[in-house]
Amino acid sequence: MDNKYITAFAPASIGNLAVGFDMLGLAIEGAGDRVSVRKVSEKGVSIKEIYDLNGNPHAGLSKNSNENTASIAAQALWQAENGQDGIEMLIYKGIPLQSGMGSSAASAVAGAVAVNALLDSPLPIAELMPYVLEGEKFASGGIHADNVAPSLIGGMVFCPPSYLPKITSIDVPKNISSVLVHPDLIVNTEESRNGLTNNYSMSQWLEQQSYLAGFLLGLQHNDLALIKNNMHDVIIEPQRVGSVVCFDDIKTSAMEMGALGCSLSGSGPSIFALCENDIAPDVKAKMMDIFNSNNINSQGWVSPLNSSGAYVES
Amino acid sequence: MDNKYITAFAPASIGNLAVGFDMLGLAIEGAGDRVSVRKVSEKGVSIKEIYDLNGNPHAGLSKNSNENTASIAAQALWQAENGQDGIEMLIYKGIPLQSGMGSSAASAVAGAVAVNALLDSPLPIAELMPYVLEGEKFASGGIHADNVAPSLIGGMVFCPPSYLPKITSIDVPKNISSVLVHPDLIVNTEESRNGLTNNYSMSQWLEQQSYLAGFLLGLQHNDLALIKNNMHDVIIEPQRVGSVVCFDDIKTSAMEMGALGCSLSGSGPSIFALCENDIAPDVKAKMMDIFNSNNINSQGWVSPLNSSGAYVES
Repeated sequence: MDNKYITAFAPASIGNLAVGFDMLGLAIEGAGDRVSVRKVSEKGVSIKEIYDLNGNPHAGLSKNSNENTASIAAQALWQAENGQDGIEMLIYKGIPLQSGMGSSAASAVAGAVAVNALLDSPLPIAELMPYVLEGEKFASGGIHADNVAPSLIGGMVFCPPSYLPKITSIDVPKNISSVLVHPDLIVNTEESRNGLTNNYSMSQWLEQQSYLAGFLLGLQHNDLALIKNNMHDVIIEPQRVGSVVCFDDIKTSAMEMGALGCSLSGSGPSIFALCENDIAPDVKAKMMDIFNSNNINSQGWVSPLNSSGAYVES
Repeated sequence: MDNKYITAFAPASIGNLAVGFDMLGLAIEGAGDRVSVRKVSEKGVSIKEIYDLNGNPHAGLSKNSNENTASIAAQALWQAENGQDGIEMLIYKGIPLQSGMGSSAASAVAGAVAVNALLDSPLPIAELMPYVLEGEKFASGGIHADNVAPSLIGGMVFCPPSYLPKITSIDVPKNISSVLVHPDLIVNTEESRNGLTNNYSMSQWLEQQSYLAGFLLGLQHNDLALIKNNMHDVIIEPQRVGSVVCFDDIKTSAMEMGALGCSLSGSGPSIFALCENDIAPDVKAKMMDIFNSNNINSQGWVSPLNSSGAYVES
């Protein structure tokens, strides 16, 4: 039995993207999780170790393979494809937990992509969606693909629940970058989701759907004014920003600097902005400055909109 | 003073288009209103006559220029552009009233486009939006552009209230046609609008906005499966179809024949379908057959998705 580890990388991602709650996500560059797998004689998927950002055993995650998105996704794929023997897994967390950066999604994707490489006939990457969704289901308590889909195939992805496991890649302009800043604060996705109201008026609903449609048409036509005029979340953002100090300051500053839009990444606490490439580094620095002036450490990334998805490293 | 009449034609249109309530509309070919105007010495806009489909004086419309969308739009433009003297207007209704085909919108558009041609410096056609909206406001009691916008500039138009008077033309595939069938039934748009509930759940709202976005991406990629999977109205259609007999039969038949989607045009009673060009005539015939077998006369049209907007005829 070939006993070498195969390692897959899966990037972090921005869920919701202001206008597409639960149905729009964007891969980012430079942050992600890695999962290494190898075949072993013992049946099933076992997690040998989970490492934190510093390379130490992770203090916050269980090694029970029924309680980690990487092993759950891996196991679902392995079973569906009748993989023989068992799998031993190492997980390297590169994304902070509950950061709004798709941490659990990236683990699920890296787990599935790594195990896929162990199959005699690996599946095309988009066909891993049903399995990574199994992982995400464990993490968020529902079927939401706005992190797993971009982490899997890269770029910006339209992935509404009604069409899953099919997903649609969105053509994106090359002159726009994403900026993502993660402050050292923690927000629980499931609690954040459960805290949302379920009462909306028809006019709110119409306004929000017009923003999603206008945003997509703006991307299609590379019409910066149309993008900017539609990058609004009048439904979710107002209910969630209270949990992220400095949000209003950061958004105001980003928009004053010329950003096309700025909102929470997923349920936060990370904040993202879209802007033209040339101002992206300055927007990132400004966002981090504001956190810093509030005594909050942060990390930031600038990515193209067509940032790559998951891949096998070795 | 040049005393010749100038005549403008403005096409009928399909409002809402199943997925874009109040924000998406489509021009159709072969039906529309005409408005003829000429300068006269008496100030203001006066309606000399309104003709019905048979060329007789119209029994159902007032000649008071404050009570017709054509004259209201014309007057708004004439005043804004400081038109000298007055205007005498003839209106030729080619679209049945309260048909769901944008009858009042086409009159407003034809009125504005005709008067625009009388100006020393006519405006670009899209800049007539504020004036045609004045007409539509009178007709529907609100600012809804999903009929005036396509009637004015043609094709398929994204025109949400939040972005008016700006509108966005949508790139459309050439292999898809619209089918529109108008039965001899009457539905009042304003009453239909007021009868809508204002309570929607978050999941309904998310589902519907995903359909609008998926429909637009389907058009962009000419992905027929994506268009078909998203041409659903789970919000408005269920509340309105009860007023149009045969709707369920017609929709079922159209879909069985291979249509991509079928819904009410505006608030009905007209019904439209989108389908590939080759089956469009048969779908139209089938829809009319079903009305006929219910002892309801109907008229039908097949149009390309990029059907032309309003123009000056003479």
